[in-house]
Amino acid sequence: MAQVNDHYLKLQAGYLFPEIGRRVSAFSESHPDADVIKLGIGDVTEPLPPAIITAMHEAVDEMADRDTFRGYGPEQGYPFLRETLAEHAFGARNVEVAADEIFVSDGSKCDSGNILDIFGADNTVAVVDPVYPVYVDTNVMAGRTGGATEDGRYEGLVYLPVTAENNFVAPLPDRRVDIAYLCYPNNPTGTVATRETLSEWVEYARANDTILLFDAAYEAYITDPDIPHSIYEIEGAREVAIEFRSFSKNAGFTGIRCACTVIPRELTGTTPSGERVELHRLWNRRHSTKFNGVSYPVQRGAAAAYSPEGREQVDGLISFYLENARLIREGLEAAGIEVYGGVNAPYVWLKTPGGADSWTFFDRLLDQAHLVGTPGSGFGAAGEGYFRLSAFNSRDNVEEAVRRFQSLVS
Amino acid sequence: MAQVNDHYLKLQAGYLFPEIGRRVSAFSESHPDADVIKLGIGDVTEPLPPAIITAMHEAVDEMADRDTFRGYGPEQGYPFLRETLAEHAFGARNVEVAADEIFVSDGSKCDSGNILDIFGADNTVAVVDPVYPVYVDTNVMAGRTGGATEDGRYEGLVYLPVTAENNFVAPLPDRRVDIAYLCYPNNPTGTVATRETLSEWVEYARANDTILLFDAAYEAYITDPDIPHSIYEIEGAREVAIEFRSFSKNAGFTGIRCACTVIPRELTGTTPSGERVELHRLWNRRHSTKFNGVSYPVQRGAAAAYSPEGREQVDGLISFYLENARLIREGLEAAGIEVYGGVNAPYVWLKTPGGADSWTFFDRLLDQAHLVGTPGSGFGAAGEGYFRLSAFNSRDNVEEAVRRFQSLVS
Repeated sequence: MAQVNDHYLKLQAGYLFPEIGRRVSAFSESHPDADVIKLGIGDVTEPLPPAIITAMHEAVDEMADRDTFRGYGPEQGYPFLRETLAEHAFGARNVEVAADEIFVSDGSKCDSGNILDIFGADNTVAVVDPVYPVYVDTNVMAGRTGGATEDGRYEGLVYLPVTAENNFVAPLPDRRVDIAYLCYPNNPTGTVATRETLSEWVEYARANDTILLFDAAYEAYITDPDIPHSIYEIEGAREVAIEFRSFSKNAGFTGIRCACTVIPRELTGTTPSGERVELHRLWNRRHSTKFNGVSYPVQRGAAAAYSPEGREQVDGLISFYLENARLIREGLEAAGIEVYGGVNAPYVWLKTPGGADSWTFFDRLLDQAHLVGTPGSGFGAAGEGYFRLSAFNSRDNVEEAVRRFQSLVS
Repeated sequence: MAQVNDHYLKLQAGYLFPEIGRRVSAFSESHPDADVIKLGIGDVTEPLPPAIITAMHEAVDEMADRDTFRGYGPEQGYPFLRETLAEHAFGARNVEVAADEIFVSDGSKCDSGNILDIFGADNTVAVVDPVYPVYVDTNVMAGRTGGATEDGRYEGLVYLPVTAENNFVAPLPDRRVDIAYLCYPNNPTGTVATRETLSEWVEYARANDTILLFDAAYEAYITDPDIPHSIYEIEGAREVAIEFRSFSKNAGFTGIRCACTVIPRELTGTTPSGERVELHRLWNRRHSTKFNGVSYPVQRGAAAAYSPEGREQVDGLISFYLENARLIREGLEAAGIEVYGGVNAPYVWLKTPGGADSWTFFDRLLDQAHLVGTPGSGFGAAGEGYFRLSAFNSRDNVEEAVRRFQSLVS
């Protein structure tokens, strides 16, 4: 009889956001008139910028005409998009990334899970805690962990706690690890990494032959000129880091689906016998065998995000959400709540009032204020007692949410 | 240092179609004036039907308006598409598949590789030979095979040869296997499976507790009313089979990307300790953790393929390609070539004239007739001495290709 991948059975409960969805649905069913405002999942709410809409319409029209119709595209993405990304997402910041080091995909969530395919089973993996759950769950599924412990952690993973006590700066592991995930601007805490912090990580990775999986999905929210947008702004990073970029949170592509992963040519791993193998070559093989490229109109829309009009419109979206973040941050601070992040990032991270545990506060907030946030403990043991609010909503909803929050805690 | 997944190093050469692409590029560079006609990769050439274009434009417009904008959709696909598929792709043929057993994805190639995630490493896998290379390569990558042997096969896989001698009917394995891939109408041979053949396979699977991975990407090409379109037309198949469907080859979605995978609730695998686990539950977990749903305008386009106008237009596309297949088939037969398939399928499978090996004939056809096909040996050892032609091209190109083919072999 066919055996299942029983590593899946180690996974606890559902993936965080479906669990939140279930609780919200149950509440809405029993309170059909409640006006629930969702600041939980990090999902954009503003429409796509006009430049992107126009580009997508044009691409759809191309597909309606035999002379301009396109079938299978390159699995790695069309050159027009890879070159646009190399020039604007990296070159414009003096970051050296070649077009053929950029693999276009349908999402960073997919890539951050799929990238594990090219690594062996025995690597030691480090994650910051709290953490985007996909990093952990996909390693559990791939068999790189033991079972779950009582606090929701998995044996075999190296957890790097970040809390108010260490100012949310990811500490270097106290041992060597093979793979480490970093996400800056950070999901869920909304904090950023300075050039110094990232330099220490690159130095650690070079000294320990560690691969850094650097998730830069929120880089567009950085307004402070001293904060790096890309890990490749740090010298030596090309030899140790893979970077994930996404159109979801800047261009509003959560429902359109486009992202990319950068694998520099210098990056290598080893075989059990110690030979060096280019990760670029392995990922290219994976991508062309298990993926068939991103929808053509989607790639045209993504490229339009970097046209002169597109960039201006995308900047407008970012500013809008950052203003939401400021309103949440300052509104909560005014109510006496300890808040973090929300300056160069669309997430505000807060200590639950009265020291409630995260899920208790989630239920209280939903029940009494009809507000949905994300329990910090859903992101890891070190997130217990914290709570995440997202700046992705309309201005009216954000202002109303702040009022409700203030009245709940006052 | 991070270890790579060294199973990747067992993979031979490139994936088939990139290899063909490299040879064609090299030829075109040295013969810039040659009018190369490609009947190699199975990529559609006709524009998207108007009903689909309209639906995609409307969906793009929805994304331009705050009131109708959609962010993250359900990872499994929107209910409107899952329900449409349940009703039209299955219900209309009296096949019982519930909407929530249908997982919408960005491609059957992706799904047929990704599905392996939910199975344990120690399963024995059977493939028909010749075979769509993705089935084999993804098992190699996942470590379910040994190394390659001289004839291009991999140790540990069970190969089921189909040739003219057994009339291209996939023989049942002579031992029990845990997982078996079937693809009907078949890629690459263009042959179909009768109800009797499929019933024997379902009976084998039920007797041996085998999971059938049934690839029905070409089902829309079946015109013979006695040939099943879905494995679930066979009694008892819901307990043993997963089915893959695609919009690529019917609605022309190779560059748009949409497909689906059906996992019936009854389907189970076992843990090492012998407990039964629902595969639906595992795939749902994989899909929601490592995938983020298909682009919304793409899902709207896919659903439109089943509207009254959409179905008529899609039927027109299918008829067009089937007529191409007939022209190729009959044109080659008239030239004295042994041909198979091409009746309920868009592929014609032929014996190479003069018994040449497949790649030699590929090079000869490219060099002397400027025609690109696919070497049968690229699909497996039993495909040596065969060659695949695809019916996906314009009528003019197909007619010209037949003329060139006839003049080459005469």
